[in-house]
Order: sequence, then C-alpha cells, then structure tokens
Amino acid sequence: MIIAIKNSTSKEQFENLIAWLETRNVSVHISKGEYQTVLGLIGDTRNIDVELLEGLDIVQKVTRITDPFKNVNRKFHPDDTIVSVGDALVGGGNFAIIAGPCSVESEEQIIAVAKSVKQSGATMLRGGAFKPRTSPYDFQGLRAEGIELLLEAKKETGLPIVTEIMDASHLHLFEEVDVIQVGARNMQNFELLKELGRTKKPILLKRGLANTLKELLMSAEYIIAGGNENIMLCERGIRTFETYTRNTLDLSAVPMLKELSHLPVVVDPSHASGISRLVKPMALAAAASGADGLMIEVHNDPVHALCDGAQSLTPEQFDDVARCVNKVLEAIK
Amino acid sequence: MIIAIKNSTSKEQFENLIAWLETRNVSVHISKGEYQTVLGLIGDTRNIDVELLEGLDIVQKVTRITDPFKNVNRKFHPDDTIVSVGDALVGGGNFAIIAGPCSVESEEQIIAVAKSVKQSGATMLRGGAFKPRTSPYDFQGLRAEGIELLLEAKKETGLPIVTEIMDASHLHLFEEVDVIQVGARNMQNFELLKELGRTKKPILLKRGLANTLKELLMSAEYIIAGGNENIMLCERGIRTFETYTRNTLDLSAVPMLKELSHLPVVVDPSHASGISRLVKPMALAAAASGADGLMIEVHNDPVHALCDGAQSLTPEQFDDVARCVNKVLEAIK
Amino acid sequence: MIIAIKNSTSKEQFENLIAWLETRNVSVHISKGEYQTVLGLIGDTRNIDVELLEGLDIVQKVTRITDPFKNVNRKFHPDDTIVSVGDALVGGGNFAIIAGPCSVESEEQIIAVAKSVKQSGATMLRGGAFKPRTSPYDFQGLRAEGIELLLEAKKETGLPIVTEIMDASHLHLFEEVDVIQVGARNMQNFELLKELGRTKKPILLKRGLANTLKELLMSAEYIIAGGNENIMLCERGIRTFETYTRNTLDLSAVPMLKELSHLPVVVDPSHASGISRLVKPMALAAAASGADGLMIEVHNDPVHALCDGAQSLTPEQFDDVARCVNKVLEAIK
Amino acid sequence: MIIAIKNSTSKEQFENLIAWLETRNVSVHISKGEYQTVLGLIGDTRNIDVELLEGLDIVQKVTRITDPFKNVNRKFHPDDTIVSVGDALVGGGNFAIIAGPCSVESEEQIIAVAKSVKQSGATMLRGGAFKPRTSPYDFQGLRAEGIELLLEAKKETGLPIVTEIMDASHLHLFEEVDVIQVGARNMQNFELLKELGRTKKPILLKRGLANTLKELLMSAEYIIAGGNENIMLCERGIRTFETYTRNTLDLSAVPMLKELSHLPVVVDPSHASGISRLVKPMALAAAASGADGLMIEVHNDPVHALCDGAQSLTPEQFDDVARCVNKVLEAIK
Repeated sequence: MIIAIKNSTSKEQFENLIAWLETRNVSVHISKGEYQTVLGLIGDTRNIDVELLEGLDIVQKVTRITDPFKNVNRKFHPDDTIVSVGDALVGGGNFAIIAGPCSVESEEQIIAVAKSVKQSGATMLRGGAFKPRTSPYDFQGLRAEGIELLLEAKKETGLPIVTEIMDASHLHLFEEVDVIQVGARNMQNFELLKELGRTKKPILLKRGLANTLKELLMSAEYIIAGGNENIMLCERGIRTFETYTRNTLDLSAVPMLKELSHLPVVVDPSHASGISRLVKPMALAAAASGADGLMIEVHNDPVHALCDGAQSLTPEQFDDVARCVNKVLEAIK
Repeated sequence: MIIAIKNSTSKEQFENLIAWLETRNVSVHISKGEYQTVLGLIGDTRNIDVELLEGLDIVQKVTRITDPFKNVNRKFHPDDTIVSVGDALVGGGNFAIIAGPCSVESEEQIIAVAKSVKQSGATMLRGGAFKPRTSPYDFQGLRAEGIELLLEAKKETGLPIVTEIMDASHLHLFEEVDVIQVGARNMQNFELLKELGRTKKPILLKRGLANTLKELLMSAEYIIAGGNENIMLCERGIRTFETYTRNTLDLSAVPMLKELSHLPVVVDPSHASGISRLVKPMALAAAASGADGLMIEVHNDPVHALCDGAQSLTPEQFDDVARCVNKVLEAIK
Repeated sequence: MIIAIKNSTSKEQFENLIAWLETRNVSVHISKGEYQTVLGLIGDTRNIDVELLEGLDIVQKVTRITDPFKNVNRKFHPDDTIVSVGDALVGGGNFAIIAGPCSVESEEQIIAVAKSVKQSGATMLRGGAFKPRTSPYDFQGLRAEGIELLLEAKKETGLPIVTEIMDASHLHLFEEVDVIQVGARNMQNFELLKELGRTKKPILLKRGLANTLKELLMSAEYIIAGGNENIMLCERGIRTFETYTRNTLDLSAVPMLKELSHLPVVVDPSHASGISRLVKPMALAAAASGADGLMIEVHNDPVHALCDGAQSLTPEQFDDVARCVNKVLEAIK
Repeated sequence: MIIAIKNSTSKEQFENLIAWLETRNVSVHISKGEYQTVLGLIGDTRNIDVELLEGLDIVQKVTRITDPFKNVNRKFHPDDTIVSVGDALVGGGNFAIIAGPCSVESEEQIIAVAKSVKQSGATMLRGGAFKPRTSPYDFQGLRAEGIELLLEAKKETGLPIVTEIMDASHLHLFEEVDVIQVGARNMQNFELLKELGRTKKPILLKRGLANTLKELLMSAEYIIAGGNENIMLCERGIRTFETYTRNTLDLSAVPMLKELSHLPVVVDPSHASGISRLVKPMALAAAASGADGLMIEVHNDPVHALCDGAQSLTPEQFDDVARCVNKVLEAIK
C-alpha cells in the first residue's frame, strides 16, 4: 500500500501516523519528495482500512497495490474452479446452459418448460420462487410453493434447479435446491453472504446493478471465507445512462473476471437488456467472449406468448439460440 | 398509463393484448396514428407490470403517468409527516441533528461523544453497532454489545439513539433502540423492509448508492404498506464518476423528495464525501436546501484525532458546524 | 407526443397551453383523468421542444412516442445503408476490418503497419494525426504531417485511410482522406457535424463516453440533415463505475442501433478496455453480436513492443484475431 | 508516480521498461515485494503517459501522486484568483450574480430582462446567441444577431455580458463580449480551448455532463497554458441515474474545486435541475457551500410566462432569490 502525505503535515502528526501504522504490523518505507512524502507499507495490509486513511486531512492519496480479495484470487489459486451441480459441470472448459421461466407459476408450466429446455440442451433449470420486486404491490412469487414445484420438475427431468434466496431465514426451504442464486440487489447483503458461506451449496452470485468487479469479488470472498468454494459469478447487466435497453451487459467483465479469479463466470443476457430480441445476439457474444455458461429465460405461458414476448424466449427461440451458441463455442475453440 | 403499439402488430396480437389488459380491470382508450397506435389505460394501473409490457415485441414504449408510490405520496397526504423520537421531532419545520461516531468502540467513547454532541445541540445520538463492510476481513462492529453501549449512553444523556440493522433476524436486539437505520446497501432488501413495516419504530431509510428517488420512495412504500408510517428518508451521496469525493451528495434530492412525499428528509454529509473538511460546507448547503435534519459523524478517539481526521469531526468542529447551521436556518426562514 | 397536465392547473393556464400548442401545427386530443389530464399531440411534433414543456410547472410528464431522429431511422429507410470506401464496403453483410496504430509516428512505422495489417486481411488503415489529449502537456499528434504520412501508406498499400478531425477549420487537410473520424469527445460538437454534413466523405462517428444511443443517432442526424448519408456509427466503450477496464464496451448497442437505424455499426475493442489482452475476446464478441466491422489498434514500434503492450496488438496478435473473427462470422452466418 | 510491476515480468522486459523510463528524465526507485515490484518515479512526471503505462501487460497499476494540472493548481498559486469583468469582480470574496434569458430572442426581450435583473442586483447579463441543441431541427439561436442584441442591452444597462461560443471560427464575433462561455458539451473541445487561451477574455468554463473535476481542471489548464488566466469554473449539474431532475447538481464540487484550484467557482442551478421551482433551494445551497457566484435564467416572455415556467424564473421570482441568497451569504460570513 502506498500513502502520499501532504507536505503541510506537522512533524507530530506525521510521527503519530507512522506509530499507528506500525501497530498494524506493517513496516513503513518513507521517501520524501518536493510536494509530498510517500509511504510504502510492506506486509499484510489487508487489515489497514483504506477509507479511514483516505479521510485523514494529512493524507493526499492512498493506493492499494495488492488486490483486497484473497481466496477468490487467481494469483493464489491459478487453476480454474470447476463447480459440479448434479451431472453438470461449470468452468474449466465446461459450459453450462441454465434455462427456465422468470417466475414459477404452476406445476404444468414449470414441467413443460423443463422438458422443453432439457431437449434443447439446457443443463440446469432456473425459475423464480422468491421474487425481488421494486413495488410492494407487485407479485412477490409463489415462495415456498414455488420451490416445491421446481423440485417436481427436477424429479420429472433430472435437471438440477437454480432459484433465488432473498433472506437468510429462508435457508431451510433451500435444502434440496441445487444452486442458490443471490440476486443483484442482495450482492452486498453481507449477513446473507456469511450464512451462505456456512453451507456447501453451489452459489450463483449476481453482480449488483452499479457494482464494480472488485466489489463482486469481495462479495464472493465473503462466501469463500466461510468455507464454501462452490461459487459461480454472474454478469447480468449494469445500470448506465442508456434507456433503450433496461441495463447494459458488460461483456468485458467476462475475460477480466476470469483473469482476476479462478471462479467460473456465467452471463444472463435476458435480464441485461429486458428485450427478447436481444437475447440471441448477446448470448452469442457472451459465448464468444469466453463465458463459462449462460442463464436464459424461457416461457411457455399464454400471457407472454400473447405477443411473442417480454425478455423471455419461447421454447423454439431458445432451441435456436442453444444451437447457435454451440456453433460459436466450436468456432472459438 | 400510456402504451405505444408498433404498426407492424398483427390484428390478432393487438386484440390479444387489449383482451389481456381488460382482465386487469382497466379500461383502454385507443388512438391510431401514422406510425403507431397509442393506448391510454384508465383506472388503477398499479397492478399492470410495466417491465412485462416494455418487453413485448409489439410494444414501442410504456409511460406511467401516475407515480407508482401511493401511501408515501404527498398527493394523497398533503401535510408534512412529523416523526417523533423521544423528545425530538423531525419534519414539519422541526430540524433534527443526529450526531455520533461511525462505530461504537467502548463505553467510555460513546458516553463522552454523547455528552459532547448533546451540549452542542444534537437531538439524537448515532453510532454503528452492526457495520456493513465491503471486505469480510474488515471490522464488522461490536454488534449486540455495541447496542448495549448505545443504551448506556442514552441512559446517561437522555438522547434517543439511532443505529443500523443488517438482517431481519437481529430485530429482537433493537427493541430499545429509538430509530432503526436501513443502510444504503440494504435499501432494496425487501424482506427486511417488510419486517420493519410490521414494527412501529421510526425508520431512517438511506438512499442506495445508485438508486433513484423513485426507488427510494418505493422502498419507503414497502415499510408504510406494512403499517409503519414513521419513516425518515436520508440522502447520503450517490455513486458518480467523480473520484476526489467518495460519493456525490445530491442536494436537489431534498426539495424534490419533499415535493413528491410528505416524509421528512435528512442529509448525511459525512458519508457523502468521506472527507471531514467537506462536512461543514455540505451541512450548511443541506440546511439551505430545505432539509429536515442532518446526520453527522463526530469522534473523540485518538486514532481519528491523530491527524484531525477522516470523515468525522472533532467535538469542537461539530460545535462550530451546529452553530453555523442554525444561522443558515435562521436566514432562510 | 403525450403530455400529462397536473390537476392543480388553472383553467386559464390550461387554455393558454392548448392555444400555444395549436400554433405549433399539431392537433391536441384531451382526456381528463382523476389525478391528471392527458394531452395527445397528433401531427409533426418534431418542432415541439420537450425540455421547454417538461419545465413548465403545470406539466407532470412529457413522453415522445415518435423517435426524434428521422433520416437515420430504419422506419423510414428499411434497407441497410452500405458505405463504400475505396474497394471496401461496410454494412449490409459486408464486414470491415480497420486496423493501424494509435498515432502516426513516422513514415517507416505507418508503412510497415499498413503492409502487415493488409496481409492479415484489414480493409482500411487507421492512424491518429490529430490527437485529443486530456492534458495540454501530452503529445498532440503529428497533425498535418501525420496525414501526409497516412497518404504515403495508402499509396504503398492501396488501403483507404481513416483519421480523426478535431476542428472544422482543419477540413481542407482531409481532402484525400477516405474516412473522417469524429472522436467521442466531439460527438456533440454540433458546428463540426454541420460542416461534415456538407461534405460527401464517409464519416465514422464515435459514441461519446456518457452518451445514449438516441444522442448518437441525433448527432448522425446532424450529418445526414446536411446531405451526407455516408455514416458509420462506432461503439467504443462508455464510462461506467468499473475501474479494471478503462471504459465498458456496450455490445447491446450493436443489435439495438441496427434495429433503430439503417447505418452500419463498427466496434472499437481497443479503446473500450485500454488493455491489449481484452482485444481478442471483445473483437470476437462484437463479431458474434452482429457488428458490421471492427476497428483495432496495431503497433510495430519498440516503445509498445517493449512489454508486449498497451491497448495495441502486435501484427502477429492482430493476425490471430482477424483469423478467429472470420471463424465467428462464419459460425453465425 | 508509482508503478506496480507484476512478478511474472521477465528480467529483460523489466530492464527495458526501466531504460525507457530513464529516457523520460525521471529517476526510478525500485522496491521488490512478494507479489509485485513497486517503482517510484522521482522528477517531473508530467510527460509520462499514464494510459500507455497502464496498458502494458507487465504493469499491474499506475498511480499518479502529483495532480496533472499545474498552473490552475492552488499548490503553486495559493491566493484566490479574482476575475474582473467590467465593474464586477468574481472570486476572493466577491460574489457574482449572472442572470438573463436562456436564448436572446428580441431587442425588447433582452433589454427588458437586463433592466430588471440589474435592479435585483445582478452583476452580469447572460443570454444565449449560439445554442447547442441535441437535434438539428431545434432552434439554433439568433447567432451573430443575438450577440448584437446583447451588446444593445449592455449599452442600455452597463451590465457586462456573458454568452456561449460553439466554434473557434466564430471568435471574431465575440470581440466586444465580456465573458465567453464554453458549454458542457465543448469542455473537451481542445482546439477551441487552445484558441481561447490565446485571448485575454474572461472565460466561463462549464463542467461536462459526465466529466470529473480533474478533467475540468485539465481543460482549464489548456486555457491557462496559452496565457489566459481569466477563468471561472462552472458547476452546472452532472448526468446521474436520477430522472426527476434533468441533471444532478454536484455542490461538493464547490469546496473541492476551491481546495484544488485558485480559480473562482460559479454555480448554475437553472440548467442543473431543469425545473424552475428547484432554482431557489439550489441557489441558496450553492451560496451556503461557498460558491463565488451564481448563473440564473430569468425570462420575461409570454411563452414561458404562460405557465410560470420552465427552468427560468420570472423577474419577481429572481428578485426573491437574489434577496435570500444575500441573507445566506451574510449568515455564513
């Protein structure tokens, strides 16, 4: 860690700072310049609070050289992590296709979608039981009942299931769920992350709407620090000023995350744009960028079918996307 | 609600959409134009899902005319809500000054700060017991013990206390806490908001780092929908591209929120910039913009004192700020 | 255009607004609701100033249904525009590969790079002569001399050349340039756009760092309104909160722009991330997303070669990228 | 400047980098750590290109310790710059109130507004002659004729005039203009900035919609590097995700800019929100935050008066704002 100190700093303030830093078990290397003095901290700087230092009046700038994440860092774990979910593998050259409806609505619906996506090559079934909604007046999901229906679909098709958790107190309902999804709005729900770290369940951790890759990795670090290494990172679009698309899919996150971390990276092109006709080009682009998997919304219900709709694909459209994705994966091998 | 339909829409798709809309208990007014057809929905459109409609291939644009929030809306409740906390009132012309350290560290610390800020005119004491930290390796707060120490300081000074909750399962620890704070990262932790709606405790709801005012009001709507009307909104800085300050304080949020809602609006200038020397100008500006209160960090501990530091003020600096804030409040009366 | 009027509006204000709107040659359709009155404007609303209306105290919301761009709009011009540059075609199924150094530095350099990229399949040569730099103390490019050197390289290789203009007064220097590039920072330099509209030269218009697709298309509309239809749109990354990459490449812009407009869309993966090792995955992803071309930095100079560096590829790396891009183009056909 | 080098760097690459750095006239101090090697550059690092270094594969991170701006930096020029415009002074305790219509529309209009704002205490008259508009079909201003009308109003009232330039080739029209405004969209029109640096005219430089304070100061550095020190910086709102206001006024920019630079800082609360009823609270907040002046839109024309509207104040509203601003200035003295 590098700390630049203003030259207006008094001798006493300076000595106090050095003394305090030395209590944190780092050694301090001092170089004096014309306009500032630069301190180089050597040792384990993870327990030095950057925000505290940055706020000090005598400090001009603090730069952390070492990444603050450790167990998810590829530097300390060069090989790809491969997450195993039922028969499906994710990472290390294994590509996952997770498909299913936005919300679980009925047994008939979820089983029909599950059968159809399986046939098109999906390796896992997704479906929302607990739904985070901006408005308290919007449909909040079938909750516990939705999980039951997903388990029925799993029994019918053998597909492992992925569904979102919204509160640590619901964890007992997820015992038979194969992958627990943490949604974008809960990416920094640290108490939830700690609880998930204590399980051994595979976790699909979505990037928050305005969060950086470093923050995503720090949230994964919360889970891994608890002992659970089965983590898939998920890019699902970030908030930008663009309004034609609901969010902006950040595909440069894929190669960057894979460079920084050994964890597999899955892309959700459905939520990113909110527009079904963008799902195919973005799914192909995600595959071309090196992603380890895709998470795609597929529906079979009449409300969506109504107008060929929403951010979900029909089973026929999904089948076409899955086929083209495989061609791109073949091309970039 | 206004829905623009593309002219490429088939007669069957169009009729299906109208039929579906009519099942939602709204009446539909149709006007055909050269390049699109515009539907005007009349009736209670709150159970029409805008995102679903926007995603339909036949839909060009959806515009909600009515605000989606209702119980926090000033239109339906023109008078200012006045939140009462012990002897302190907030809103409707009553100005609150909430002061205290970032984290509760010891009995000695919290009592000394409480006494000192009370003398300078603070009306409530703040202090962090549960601390949301980006890194699992950073100090997570004294947790339950921190709340005990705050209650000690309350007993000594009579100041009502404000402290942050991070998970609904901790709620039993907050029984004697006067104001429960919801932090920026939990603004859309909807399960937590629902639980807080079931209490009668005053809630200080902080705006998320990249959230809009509409989203903040929708989160307040979650609390009020559960029956709890004691809500203070808090602007604490949003994420922008600026790097000299940690966040950007959005003071236009103050008059805008007060126009949209009857709830009081408190400003936190300490977290917004992360720099103690900006706290005074931003506190004065917040008062001049019409805020109902301020939340300011004050410390008395040697680590911060070390270099006149961080985003916290010393008791002497806080005393100066409080005096100047009162002058500005007098000037704009 | 839809205008929602507050119900607090006086009869006189309301009638004044209607009278004023009618002077703008639109007819007004009025529907009164419980909380607001909605006006539907029928006719050519392009000369109604949305910002003026939005600012009126009696107006709650203004929604433009029709896109404000017209000549670049695919609705009025369904077929793909194909821009022809020397022997190269861009758009309508023709894929362009524009390659070359960030800055033109010497005759030797530019000719060597031109020869090498031509051999790898580049269809145009790029090179900066006028360089926009954040600091007045940074190298500003070889300017007029740089253009001379590009023309030398064109003579040697036959490759058409692309280079950036920074001020309308330099236009006489661009007479033999094949494609004039407008940089991100000049996307809304409207006086420059008007001048370029008066030429017949192909223009490569880069999206501004924080601009929306609508703003990009409105800037293209400035050029086309002057009579010049030879425009290529270029996505080159937008500013987000992410810091591991310099900018965030927005690939959903590709299918979205191609849906909204008939103009070809080129992607610049080099500037987007600022990191050479991300150029390949992002170039492949851009091709998979449906782009009409790529613009890639290639260097052969020792400063960059020094450490295999910067955002530029070596000729060997570029050759590999070009080959893989062709495989992806083949796969998605 | 601090450069962190990856430990995977070969000896040859490392030595090449050191050799290249030494050709830039800086001396290099090397400290080897477990996971990276840190280089400290000592000397004038302004001609080291950070972006080039950041892009190198062997470089992990580059941190500039010294601010890249020099002549606008308060460190090298501790006293406040006071810009003198006719009888008006701006900065160093002198507060400017610049008022007038968004666009100059007629002689009658501009003279009437000029007289009225002068009476309320305005120290300069503003009015748009050249208007930057997103759409080529929107009114582009009276251009040269608008400047003539402003000069008439100046003759009538003695108020110095402020108006925007959009292209360096128009400079001859600005000879009698007192303050040349550079708009947000031209903040990084570097060729224009260079031209303005060659004049001695006071320049009002507006912050771009998505630009940082460092970029604003670098643009001011372009002007001052040419020899013109008469610069006022202007905060006018930045683009954020908020939609209730057109832009977000960043008032923390005021104390931050005044700490970083000796130049005066003016705030434009009219453009920031685009809503006239927010102008008063934001003007008071700007004054309380320590600004050196305000720039406020005032109209007297019937289209705006129509509904008491837009982002402009009526002369009566402006009179009230000016009076209250003076009270706040008195209170914070």
